[in-house]
Amino acid sequence: MLGEGEARDRAAAMLAEAGIVLMPAEREAIEIADFGLGDLERYGLQIVVYVNTERVCAKELVMFPGQMCPEHRHPPVGDDPGKEETFRVRRGSVRLWVDGDGEVELGPGDQHTILPDTLHWFVAGPEGAVVSEFSTRSRDETDVFTDPRVVR
Amino acid sequence: MLGEGEARDRAAAMLAEAGIVLMPAEREAIEIADFGLGDLERYGLQIVVYVNTERVCAKELVMFPGQMCPEHRHPPVGDDPGKEETFRVRRGSVRLWVDGDGEVELGPGDQHTILPDTLHWFVAGPEGAVVSEFSTRSRDETDVFTDPRVVR
Repeated sequence: MLGEGEARDRAAAMLAEAGIVLMPAEREAIEIADFGLGDLERYGLQIVVYVNTERVCAKELVMFPGQMCPEHRHPPVGDDPGKEETFRVRRGSVRLWVDGDGEVELGPGDQHTILPDTLHWFVAGPEGAVVSEFSTRSRDETDVFTDPRVVR
Repeated sequence: MLGEGEARDRAAAMLAEAGIVLMPAEREAIEIADFGLGDLERYGLQIVVYVNTERVCAKELVMFPGQMCPEHRHPPVGDDPGKEETFRVRRGSVRLWVDGDGEVELGPGDQHTILPDTLHWFVAGPEGAVVSEFSTRSRDETDVFTDPRVVR
């Protein structure tokens, strides 16, 4: 079974291979999200958060081969109409499904914008993926997942 | 004198060296900003805009050795309190001056957030720089430059 420490090491290696420089503290702080499903190899994301202010958020997402981020949406919160996010694939590939847009295959240099409150899920291809995410404020705790077992 | 075509070629090469994959159309669309000063080698920016919606903007900035972006601020526009931007250096180095923060040296993996309506300028080090910019909506035409000769 894939543990947090090993996932962090593998993610850091994939970021380095993609030419992305992290500070030592950022490397140590790589977030390992298993969505409470306890099967990180299949359901998970490795995340570097560069910035997350009231208005702007930027992250790198690292995904291992075949790893999936389960279906969810970013609902309105107070005055915020919900998170708007753009994924840009840097390395590897991702298959992304977005309600209304259908399925899109994204390789290096491809990107896709997901509107607020729109259901989506994505899964990495056979080489895994490094994906930059540009978005409005990230409030993971308010994300709504379709699978009731998910805990974010 | 450094022309637009050559600047675009040099910027594309620096992005490729940094491991950043561009689509052919993105490469052709690299914006060359000389700020109307007609001396691109000294005053200029080479810009790839990934996304610029009402809420979020993400760009790569490429700077040649010693190239400078002149002092300016991003004022409020209508309901928008002004552009908030975070610079993250990927390659090379940048010396950034921000009103209230003073001068900061940024190398690979360093980043700095600039609040709306705050004067700032920056200059690339001897190797030039590749800088990711994560921000709210970009409205270059409303930027206020200190030097009245600047045209954006």
